[in-house]
Amino acid sequence: MTETKSSETVKLVLTLSCPDQPGIVHAVSGMVVSAGGNIIQSAQFADLDSGLFFMRVEMDVPCAHDIRSRVETLAAEFDMAWELDEIGRALRTVIMVSKEGHCLSDLLYRVRDHSIPIDVKAVVGNHPDLAPIATFYQVPFILVPVTKDNKPEAERQLLDLVAAEKVELVVLARYMQILSDKLCREMSGRIINIHHSFLPSFKGAKPYDQAHDRGVKLIGATAHYVTADLDEGPIIEQDVSRVDHTFTAIDMRKQGQDVERRVLAQAVKWHAEHRVLMNGDRTVIFR
Amino acid sequence: MTETKSSETVKLVLTLSCPDQPGIVHAVSGMVVSAGGNIIQSAQFADLDSGLFFMRVEMDVPCAHDIRSRVETLAAEFDMAWELDEIGRALRTVIMVSKEGHCLSDLLYRVRDHSIPIDVKAVVGNHPDLAPIATFYQVPFILVPVTKDNKPEAERQLLDLVAAEKVELVVLARYMQILSDKLCREMSGRIINIHHSFLPSFKGAKPYDQAHDRGVKLIGATAHYVTADLDEGPIIEQDVSRVDHTFTAIDMRKQGQDVERRVLAQAVKWHAEHRVLMNGDRTVIFR
Amino acid sequence: MTETKSSETVKLVLTLSCPDQPGIVHAVSGMVVSAGGNIIQSAQFADLDSGLFFMRVEMDVPCAHDIRSRVETLAAEFDMAWELDEIGRALRTVIMVSKEGHCLSDLLYRVRDHSIPIDVKAVVGNHPDLAPIATFYQVPFILVPVTKDNKPEAERQLLDLVAAEKVELVVLARYMQILSDKLCREMSGRIINIHHSFLPSFKGAKPYDQAHDRGVKLIGATAHYVTADLDEGPIIEQDVSRVDHTFTAIDMRKQGQDVERRVLAQAVKWHAEHRVLMNGDRTVIFR
Amino acid sequence: MTETKSSETVKLVLTLSCPDQPGIVHAVSGMVVSAGGNIIQSAQFADLDSGLFFMRVEMDVPCAHDIRSRVETLAAEFDMAWELDEIGRALRTVIMVSKEGHCLSDLLYRVRDHSIPIDVKAVVGNHPDLAPIATFYQVPFILVPVTKDNKPEAERQLLDLVAAEKVELVVLARYMQILSDKLCREMSGRIINIHHSFLPSFKGAKPYDQAHDRGVKLIGATAHYVTADLDEGPIIEQDVSRVDHTFTAIDMRKQGQDVERRVLAQAVKWHAEHRVLMNGDRTVIFR
Repeated sequence: MTETKSSETVKLVLTLSCPDQPGIVHAVSGMVVSAGGNIIQSAQFADLDSGLFFMRVEMDVPCAHDIRSRVETLAAEFDMAWELDEIGRALRTVIMVSKEGHCLSDLLYRVRDHSIPIDVKAVVGNHPDLAPIATFYQVPFILVPVTKDNKPEAERQLLDLVAAEKVELVVLARYMQILSDKLCREMSGRIINIHHSFLPSFKGAKPYDQAHDRGVKLIGATAHYVTADLDEGPIIEQDVSRVDHTFTAIDMRKQGQDVERRVLAQAVKWHAEHRVLMNGDRTVIFR
Repeated sequence: MTETKSSETVKLVLTLSCPDQPGIVHAVSGMVVSAGGNIIQSAQFADLDSGLFFMRVEMDVPCAHDIRSRVETLAAEFDMAWELDEIGRALRTVIMVSKEGHCLSDLLYRVRDHSIPIDVKAVVGNHPDLAPIATFYQVPFILVPVTKDNKPEAERQLLDLVAAEKVELVVLARYMQILSDKLCREMSGRIINIHHSFLPSFKGAKPYDQAHDRGVKLIGATAHYVTADLDEGPIIEQDVSRVDHTFTAIDMRKQGQDVERRVLAQAVKWHAEHRVLMNGDRTVIFR
Repeated sequence: MTETKSSETVKLVLTLSCPDQPGIVHAVSGMVVSAGGNIIQSAQFADLDSGLFFMRVEMDVPCAHDIRSRVETLAAEFDMAWELDEIGRALRTVIMVSKEGHCLSDLLYRVRDHSIPIDVKAVVGNHPDLAPIATFYQVPFILVPVTKDNKPEAERQLLDLVAAEKVELVVLARYMQILSDKLCREMSGRIINIHHSFLPSFKGAKPYDQAHDRGVKLIGATAHYVTADLDEGPIIEQDVSRVDHTFTAIDMRKQGQDVERRVLAQAVKWHAEHRVLMNGDRTVIFR
Repeated sequence: MTETKSSETVKLVLTLSCPDQPGIVHAVSGMVVSAGGNIIQSAQFADLDSGLFFMRVEMDVPCAHDIRSRVETLAAEFDMAWELDEIGRALRTVIMVSKEGHCLSDLLYRVRDHSIPIDVKAVVGNHPDLAPIATFYQVPFILVPVTKDNKPEAERQLLDLVAAEKVELVVLARYMQILSDKLCREMSGRIINIHHSFLPSFKGAKPYDQAHDRGVKLIGATAHYVTADLDEGPIIEQDVSRVDHTFTAIDMRKQGQDVERRVLAQAVKWHAEHRVLMNGDRTVIFR
C-alpha cells in the first residue's frame, strides 16, 4: 500500500559547506519541510575568516521521497559541497598497521561493540605481527610488505583493494610507512592518521624521544587527515597526558599509547558519523 | 533617508524552548529572512526524553524592524518560552560574598577585561572583608550583615536593591548564607551559585573535609542555579582537579579555589551570553 | 666463584608503614647499605592525621644476601607492616567479569603488552559471553554462574581457585555480583573493583542513569579496594570525562567505558608495582 | 637556658644533586639524625641518563645546631650542588610586566592569600598600564620603558634593583621584551617566564595566531626558566585547554590567559617551595 509506504521514514545526515549568504538555513529547512521531513538536530557555523558557511543536519524523511534530487537543486543554487548519508551506515574501511597493535586492537573492539560505525573490510599490514588480532575479530588480514623497491607495487595493491571493496576510509593505525603524494591526493580527506605527538610539536620520527629530550610535562597525540605534506594535514582531534621527570622515553611511549588510541578512535568515530567538515587546512567538527 | 536607515543593523540573540514538532527551524529562519535579517549562528537540540525543543539563534537584523513582535507571533504559534536580547549587552548583576575573595576578585578582573558581559551594580557582603576588592574595581560595596534575627530584613534589602537596580542576575561568589525559599522562587533561574564540590558528592557543609576523609583523588566544583532544594539546582558547569595523599583538607581547599573560580566564571559567562537554557532540573548549553 | 656470585644483584621493592618516629629513613637506608645494596628510588610520606609513616624503596642488592631477615629485624624494631617483592614479578591474578568486555579486553591487551605486571591465571565469569576474549589471550575462562541459591557455592569455587593458584589479586572488571562480607574480609586489600561513577556520587546501581537524571557535566569512574561496605572501600584512582546535554544515559555509559578501563588499568598497574599502601580508609600512592 | 633553647626547632628544606653512588640517602639521613633532627618528608630521583642523583628533604632540626656546616661537609664528600632554606620563607621577588595584567593580578592575589611564598619587592613594567594593580596590592610599581636605544640602560636599572633588594627571583608575567644573554646568564635558574603556547609548538611571536592557523584542538601555556636560547629554557610546568573551530585567534588568546596564569602560578609556587631542581635542559620536580 502506498499509504503504508509513505509513512515509513529514513534517518539521513546532510553535511554541506558553501560561501556564506543570507537564507541558507531557511532554504535547507524549507527543503526538509517540503519533503515531508523533520529536522532532528542541526548545527551551523559561519567562518568569518574564510567566508564559508558549514552545516550538518540530521533529518527524518519519508523513504519514498527523492530527497537527493532536492539537495542537488539546492546545492546548485548555493554552490554547495555536500554529502548525504543514512545515519548509522557503516563506512567501508581499511585499517593499515605495522607492528604496534594498541590502536588496531582498540578500534576493532569498538567496532564490534557498535561504538564506531565502520565496516572493516581488511587490515593491511607491512609486517605479519598483528594478523592474530585481525583474525580474532574476524577481519581479513592482508600482508603487504614494503621495501624500498616495491613501494609503488605495494601502493597499487592498496589502491586495487580500495577499488575492489569500494573503500571509503583508510585509517593509519600506527602504520610506519609514508604514503606517496599521489595516493594522498587521490584519497584526500579519506585517510586518517594518528601522529604520536601533540602536533606541531615533535614532527617526524621518534616524537617520544624528542619529547623526553625537551623535558615536556605533557605528551600528546594528534589524529589528522593525511596530505602530501607530512604531519601537516588538517587536525581532527588531539589530547594530552601528564608525564614527569621520572618518565624515560620508553615510559612516555607506553603512556602515550593510551592517548593515541583514544584520540584515533574519537577521530574515526566523528568522521564516520559525518561530523567532520574540511575548512581549508583546518576542520569544523559538529559534535 | 529610509535607505540609509534600513542599512543599519543590530545583532540579536534569540533563545527559545517549546514542545518539539516539525517546522520550528523553518519557521524561525523564515521569520529572520522575512525581517530582512541574516542568521549568523544557530544551534538546536531536541530532548527525546522531555519532548522539548531548544534553539539559540544569533542574527543580524535591520534596526528599524520590529523583530520582537514577529517573535511574539511565532512564540504564540509554537507555545515557546523565549528571550530576545542584544548580543553583548551587559546584564545588570549583583555579586554576593562573605569572606573568601578568590571568586569575587576573579569575576571583577574578567568583567573589567571584557571577558564576561555583565555590569556589576553592587557587591553585597555579609562581612566587610572584601570591600577593598570591590572598591578597587570601582563597584559599590554594600554591607548587609546577616544574623539569625535579621534574615528577613536582610533579604528585603537585597530584593529592594534588585528592584531599584533592575538586577537581572545574582551571583553567589562563595556567599555562605542560605537564601530563603521565597527568594529562590522569586528569582528562579537568575541566581547562580558555586558549590565547592563535584555535586552530588559532598553536599552541604565543609565539602573539602568530606573529600579529604573519603580519600578522593579528584576534587571539584559545581556552578548551578539556586533552587529551594539546597545543592540540587540545575547544574551549569563542573570541573575537577587532581589531588593526592599528601593533600590536607586545607591544601584541597586552596587547590579547589582555582577550580571554583574557573567554573563560576565560565557559568556566569555562558549565562550572560544567553547560552544556558533550562530543561527541567537540567540545563542545555549552546557553547 | 664467590666473587662472581656476589656481583650478581636482584632488584627489590620494599613497602612499609609504621608509627612515625625519628630515624626510620636512616634505619632503612642503613639496612640497604649494610647489605651491600643501593637505593635506586625511594619515597616517603608521614600522615600528620594518623601519625603513620609510609615508605617505598626500590633497591639493588646482592642476590646472596638475606635481605628478608634484615627487614624482619627492622620491622620488629619499628612495628612495621611491610612487603618485599622482586621488581617486575607478575602477581598471580584472577579477573572476574559478567557481560561487558571493555575492561577485560583492555586489561588482557596490556598484560600481553607487558604494561601491567600481572599473571592472569583465569578469567571467571558468571556469564559465558566473554569466554572468547579470554581464549584469544590464552587465559582459561571459568564459568561460575551465580543465582540466589548457589551464591555460597559459587564463592567457595572462587576461594578454591584462589587457594589452588595461590592467587594474590582479584580484579572485578565490571563483575555485576556483590561479594559476601566473608570473602571481602578474607581477601581484604587484594580485591580491586571498578565502579562506574565518580564516587561518592551515584553509589549503587545504574550510576549513568542517575548521572543523566542529575544533569551532571562530567562523568567518572573509581577504582577502589573492595570492603564489606559496598562502594565505600579505599579509593585507588579516579578520573572523569566531559559530557553535555546531548548525551543520553546510554551515550554516557559508552563514553564512561573509556574512563572505566583507563582507571581500572591504572589502579591494577599501581597495585601490581607495589605503589599503593593502605592508610585506614584511604590510600597512599607512590607514583 | 640551654635546655629550652635546644628544644626549639626549625623546619628546613634541603635540595641537592650530585653524581649518583651508593650511600647518599643514608649519609643525608645520618646527618639529620646526628644533628638531632627528624625527616618530615623526602623524595629522591636518580636519572639513569645523566647519572645524576636528586634529593629534596624537609626536616625538623634543633635551632641551635649548625646544620649548614654539616651539609657543607657532606656536599664536599659527594660533590653536591645544594640549597638549604627555611620552609615557608618568602623569596625576594620582582615581577616584570608589559600591558596584559591577568598573570600579574593572579600572582599578587595568590601572594596576599598566602598561596605562594614570595615577597614581591617590586613590579617592573615597560608600560604604565598595570601600575594600579600593583598599587592596590601595595607593591611598588617601577616604570622602566624599553626602547631600541635604552635597552642596556634599562637592564642595568633592573640589575641595580636586583642588587639593592637582594632579589632571588624574577618572574616575567607576560613581559614582552627579550632579555639580553648577559642578564640571562647572570640570573640563570632565577628567571621564570610564561610562554603562551604549548612549547615547543608555536615558538616566537603571536602563538595564538599560529595556533589558530594550524587549527589545533588544544591550546597551552609553558612556564620555563629563561636561558639565552629564547623559548628553549628548562620547562617547569605546562597545561592545555580545549578549543574548537568556533574560536577566533582572539578567543584563543582570551581562553589561553586562564591557562597562562594557572601554569605560571604553579611554576612560581614550586620554585619558591624549592621543589624544582635543574637537570641539564630539563627539570626534576618533587611535588
